[in-house]
Amino acid sequence: MSSIDTTLSPLFAKIDELKPQFIQRLTDAVAIPSVSSDETLRPKVFAMADFLKEELAKLGADDITIKDLGIQPPPVSDPELPLPPIVLSKFGSDPNKKTVLIYGHYDVQPALLEDGWASDPFTLVEKDGKLIGRGSTDDKGPVMGWLNSLQAHKELGLELPVNIVFCFEGMEESGSIGLDTLIAQEAKKYFKEVESVCISDNYWLGTKKPVLTYGLRGCNYYQISIKGPGADLHSGIFGGVIHEPMTDLVNVMSKLVDINGNILIPGVNEMVAPVTEKEASLYKDIEFDVDELNLAAGSNTAIYQSKKDILMHRWRFPSLSLHGIEGAFSGAGAKTVIPAKVVGKFSIRTVPDMDSKKLDELVINFCNEKFKELKSPNQFTTELIHDGAYWVSDPFNNEFTAAKLATEKVWGVEPDLTREGGSIPITLTFEKELGANVLLLPMGKGDDGAHSINEKLNTPNYIEGTKTLSAYLHYFGATK
Amino acid sequence: MSSIDTTLSPLFAKIDELKPQFIQRLTDAVAIPSVSSDETLRPKVFAMADFLKEELAKLGADDITIKDLGIQPPPVSDPELPLPPIVLSKFGSDPNKKTVLIYGHYDVQPALLEDGWASDPFTLVEKDGKLIGRGSTDDKGPVMGWLNSLQAHKELGLELPVNIVFCFEGMEESGSIGLDTLIAQEAKKYFKEVESVCISDNYWLGTKKPVLTYGLRGCNYYQISIKGPGADLHSGIFGGVIHEPMTDLVNVMSKLVDINGNILIPGVNEMVAPVTEKEASLYKDIEFDVDELNLAAGSNTAIYQSKKDILMHRWRFPSLSLHGIEGAFSGAGAKTVIPAKVVGKFSIRTVPDMDSKKLDELVINFCNEKFKELKSPNQFTTELIHDGAYWVSDPFNNEFTAAKLATEKVWGVEPDLTREGGSIPITLTFEKELGANVLLLPMGKGDDGAHSINEKLNTPNYIEGTKTLSAYLHYFGATK
Repeated sequence: MSSIDTTLSPLFAKIDELKPQFIQRLTDAVAIPSVSSDETLRPKVFAMADFLKEELAKLGADDITIKDLGIQPPPVSDPELPLPPIVLSKFGSDPNKKTVLIYGHYDVQPALLEDGWASDPFTLVEKDGKLIGRGSTDDKGPVMGWLNSLQAHKELGLELPVNIVFCFEGMEESGSIGLDTLIAQEAKKYFKEVESVCISDNYWLGTKKPVLTYGLRGCNYYQISIKGPGADLHSGIFGGVIHEPMTDLVNVMSKLVDINGNILIPGVNEMVAPVTEKEASLYKDIEFDVDELNLAAGSNTAIYQSKKDILMHRWRFPSLSLHGIEGAFSGAGAKTVIPAKVVGKFSIRTVPDMDSKKLDELVINFCNEKFKELKSPNQFTTELIHDGAYWVSDPFNNEFTAAKLATEKVWGVEPDLTREGGSIPITLTFEKELGANVLLLPMGKGDDGAHSINEKLNTPNYIEGTKTLSAYLHYFGATK
Repeated sequence: MSSIDTTLSPLFAKIDELKPQFIQRLTDAVAIPSVSSDETLRPKVFAMADFLKEELAKLGADDITIKDLGIQPPPVSDPELPLPPIVLSKFGSDPNKKTVLIYGHYDVQPALLEDGWASDPFTLVEKDGKLIGRGSTDDKGPVMGWLNSLQAHKELGLELPVNIVFCFEGMEESGSIGLDTLIAQEAKKYFKEVESVCISDNYWLGTKKPVLTYGLRGCNYYQISIKGPGADLHSGIFGGVIHEPMTDLVNVMSKLVDINGNILIPGVNEMVAPVTEKEASLYKDIEFDVDELNLAAGSNTAIYQSKKDILMHRWRFPSLSLHGIEGAFSGAGAKTVIPAKVVGKFSIRTVPDMDSKKLDELVINFCNEKFKELKSPNQFTTELIHDGAYWVSDPFNNEFTAAKLATEKVWGVEPDLTREGGSIPITLTFEKELGANVLLLPMGKGDDGAHSINEKLNTPNYIEGTKTLSAYLHYFGATK
């Protein structure tokens, strides 16, 4: 038995013993409706920050620093709306230990019983081995997991194997306002010693096998604005006699992507890094199939049937989605309007080695060209309204190796190495600002329904997840 | 001097004399916010019905019948919401006189000061010769015009030249629920003697010359529904791996109409009646030009430059407008959603001799065919959700001839004979159910802004309009 095994054995036993307290901790956290997107609930987001502060104090933090981020910038209803603070804290400052920054967020998505929840979303219910409640898996479960780990160490009198720096934010579900700036400001101050970052804010690919995540797609979001008349017009009076912006827009939007998801903008696919043999081999053992995709999508509308094609197109090839149109009629029923100004929204998921600026140029030029071909007198612009870069890590570095050992120890199975089709922009910020490796170590399963009704975290994922996070710290701390 | 001239001279003088009272009457009517689409204002719609009832009683109606229409069918918030009544009344029952049904509506469009009104929308303000307020021109001004005419007759002790049957409804701005049924029910009862219908609920083509309106386009409204996944999905996770309904929809919608307003569905244009020489000649003297269109549209985006082309494409050729998409992202900013179900809305304005059923068949088959070409696994349907037929009258019949004389008498100019691009479905119902000729005799100008902010009725249009309505009754009553 290695020395780590000797350590982990009583630690895991303690975690099992404390299970009722850990569930109570998550129950207390879920009970605070810290919905960051609902201005009326902003006091609850602050209450959640206070809750964390108290928990951290009880666990014996060396330092707790509450970073006030000031007033939330527009658009807001309340011009004096305060941003939830970022809760920082430190456990340990041994210069001989590694320092790991642990990020999590304490705000949640909105939830109303009327949305279709089987029970009150802010009352954690344990049913059929699932802890059901808003925030259970996103991201209060994982955040409590870290606190649970500290409690277990404390009760055992077990020294932490690394120095820990916590960074908990309260605006993740609302654009992480202020976080990037804070990270940059504190990079050489509060975060000075940080050499590694661990984030538990994503999910297993499926429901059976734990995963470690080493890549994320980026996202460039564009809008095409077409303006014709000075105001919305009646289609009875103006239909057939003026150039309608919707006709132009639908025409241009129809030329961006084909029915099989192929991006039709020349030059885009050419920027994508070729698939190497080593990369291709990573897909072989991953547990996934088309049925899982269809189940998750709730339809049999998959473009690809093979596991490898699906995952590659989700993770390492770009995609283009048409999201909708602002300014057009969007209600139920019939409205005979000619919308005066319509704004088509679409985004492209980006992957290595796409150059974001080059992509913008290709997209904007293509749209301009397609519009020009229409010879419409309406006013046309295409613009980038948001971008976030892709991220890919080396899945064989120290962090991933330690996380692999921890996962095997707890779950008895080698984790799948996954990427995600979506983006977690903060990953890149940490990597860039702190010069640290980032590990994504998810706790919940692929069917947790993070932003949906009846969000849940399986009880074993919560408890074994707490063990996995704990073991990770020990394996990583032991890394030479 | 003809006997009609002898009659009209003192009548017009009386109308001029009563101008302050007439403006007060409109002020009182506008002060009641009878917004039929706002359930919370339903009591005000009833208050407006009471107002009319009292006015009609004061004017000595022979009969006032308030037709209760029961409870408003869903969708409504209040399942017990009563429909506003239809206010019927009769003045005169001389079997030697013609009987004219006069239709108007006493409900109005919503209006809030915050929408951008220069003054409170429900306080009639006279400024620069304009009576500004919600409902001033649509349709309280014309309705008060008829009451004004009766008051002038009464004060002069002047016998009405025709029997009058009033039919005032309170749901015109909300789909005229219950009116069709009532007209059918009363066709052989309350409306038995009616041989002619006059509606003053549209507008001059422009701002300088009065018009009589002899045609309306119909409207067939369609929706294309495309359903893919079971719920809205995240474009990061599903982008590139499933068939997205929006891609299908935009593709199909882009094939319906070209940038110059040409309908691309084979067989549709072939149903349109050819332009006859006589019809073409009617356009010659109409006062209108492309600048007027561009001014009204608030842009220089006219498809046609000649008066005749513009008016023909507004009045006697079909048009297809894309109104919007239900179910897609329609807000401001960026949302990375793959909408699960999207519903594209479009309508076709119909004209003689288009067959409505045949049109539905052409449209639905064409959409099905275009979707089939895509080979998408998503679920697709196209359906008609609303239709209203076109209407064309003989602009040289007794009604139009009398209205032409009345207009010339009051305005000193021959009215333009116009059609409208939009529809007034009730026109057809009256024609069909009562077997009566319908005359559209507008009071307000083309720039009144009926459904917009700062709706107005020019004071001369109100007063000379009251004279025109009065004169019409006399000329029509004198018709052999």
